[in-house]
Amino acid sequence: MPVPIGAGWAAHFLAQGFAVTSYIHAADEEASLRALIDDAWISLSELGLAKGASREDFSCTTDLAKAVQGAQFVQESAPESLSLKQSLYEQLGTLVAGDVVICSSTSGLRMTDIQAGCASAGRTVVGHPFNPPYLLPLVEVVGGEKTSPAAVQWAADSIVRQVRHRWSLKREIPGFVATRLQEALWREALHMIANDEASVEDIDFAVINGPGPRWAMMGPCLTYHVGGGEGGMEYCLEQFGPAFKLPWSRLDAPELTPELAKRLIEGSANLAAGRNYSTLNRQRDAGLVAIRHLKNDTTDDN
Amino acid sequence: MPVPIGAGWAAHFLAQGFAVTSYIHAADEEASLRALIDDAWISLSELGLAKGASREDFSCTTDLAKAVQGAQFVQESAPESLSLKQSLYEQLGTLVAGDVVICSSTSGLRMTDIQAGCASAGRTVVGHPFNPPYLLPLVEVVGGEKTSPAAVQWAADSIVRQVRHRWSLKREIPGFVATRLQEALWREALHMIANDEASVEDIDFAVINGPGPRWAMMGPCLTYHVGGGEGGMEYCLEQFGPAFKLPWSRLDAPELTPELAKRLIEGSANLAAGRNYSTLNRQRDAGLVAIRHLKNDTTDDN
Repeated sequence: MPVPIGAGWAAHFLAQGFAVTSYIHAADEEASLRALIDDAWISLSELGLAKGASREDFSCTTDLAKAVQGAQFVQESAPESLSLKQSLYEQLGTLVAGDVVICSSTSGLRMTDIQAGCASAGRTVVGHPFNPPYLLPLVEVVGGEKTSPAAVQWAADSIVRQVRHRWSLKREIPGFVATRLQEALWREALHMIANDEASVEDIDFAVINGPGPRWAMMGPCLTYHVGGGEGGMEYCLEQFGPAFKLPWSRLDAPELTPELAKRLIEGSANLAAGRNYSTLNRQRDAGLVAIRHLKNDTTDDN
Repeated sequence: MPVPIGAGWAAHFLAQGFAVTSYIHAADEEASLRALIDDAWISLSELGLAKGASREDFSCTTDLAKAVQGAQFVQESAPESLSLKQSLYEQLGTLVAGDVVICSSTSGLRMTDIQAGCASAGRTVVGHPFNPPYLLPLVEVVGGEKTSPAAVQWAADSIVRQVRHRWSLKREIPGFVATRLQEALWREALHMIANDEASVEDIDFAVINGPGPRWAMMGPCLTYHVGGGEGGMEYCLEQFGPAFKLPWSRLDAPELTPELAKRLIEGSANLAAGRNYSTLNRQRDAGLVAIRHLKNDTTDDN
């Protein structure tokens, strides 16, 4: 039985103390939905539940109108099909009370396309989580052309509260930011697997033992800023600028213009937030040592 | 003052109990080299030093012949310039005793090109670490056309011992495996920054709070295998196959042929190594909870 999508979100909102009703396609999906919530509850309890949070506030139904009745917020997590989502938003547009924000979990479809046939498109917003949404803090919030700025603001302020960060994207691009980054890495991996240059096991081994643990602590920009030592991102670009022309990926690199270099150098300084090289180096290393211990405790991959 | 390359490797080999001599360009690099080793020593002591390991076994010199005299192993970490490395390997080819393996830290230059003018190319091998090499276990070992299989084997068995994994790559491709994966993500990030679709801060925020922590615990293949629930990678490919055609990256996706799907499904089953969905789900979540606690302790990013 496939995992019903949206179980992770349901667990998250329950843990925040809300009552949750899930709309499911078939009544027999309920058991696996509840099993997933039970699994998630172990971690959520460990992180700390909101006062009064209880799995007894969960219910499901195969009746869409009943599912959204009285809802103060709707998180849509239908399969990744534009036509399916468009038809769903046509229905939700009239079923859901007009002042209620409807958020889509889409991994990269544009809300402008999803909301096309919705009679009340102003309150529809993308709120894209990363799996599992009850543990990873990222939610990418972005509106479509018809979305009101107030709905984007409400989603960023309200949905993303407590364990999540307030964040909304600069632009509505397909795949948003995090999916694009992940997808570039994934497509390169698939090319290597397809060409027999690396196996599935090689790919996972390389990530877990190489860049992966670093990315849990520091993003790619701050990583290179630290990699440049006292000279930071500026020195790093001087050193690795030439390597940028090498065929190290099937993805063509953009031109490293002075404007792009300036953005990288200034942005990295913002990320460093006054921490000097030695401090950043120590913080990264302390995190990596702790992750090394963690991996020994929780997996057999290292 | 820029950070001298190779300090992390020096710290690693010292911690393993070896005497290390670093070749440096200018005598005034010694202070920052020693400062880096001192910083690394904090983490290395925490992870456990080999018996007798001591920073007193470290020395440096600006004389290349003296640096390699009596060496049982050479780890070359010169800047990423092919002509510079080629000229260095011409010298090392005669300076270093013939039965000693010479390993290059290159991030992606091919050993076939680096060893072109080396009189004893058979013992030259790529041993590409990830920064910081004293904490990240990955070392990509691969030979060039003239490299003897015995040298690759020796490097994989000897250099990669103890804290590292035995691993050698299937093929000599530019950028090897981990650099290609990292570079695809980085190039996509640069395109977004160049087009003003995301800021430097957006990129790092997205990685640290989204896919990054997962990649510390599980690679992309096992992540999707778990994402597919009981149905695993096979179900995941059915669900996300169509999304593969979407413009979620500037990197063109390869064709999802039945052969590629088969490799993904079988390889993911190997990675799961008999663990069922529920077990994998719990292991991932336990790791993510621990990383969440870690990040709160060691950085102010979350």
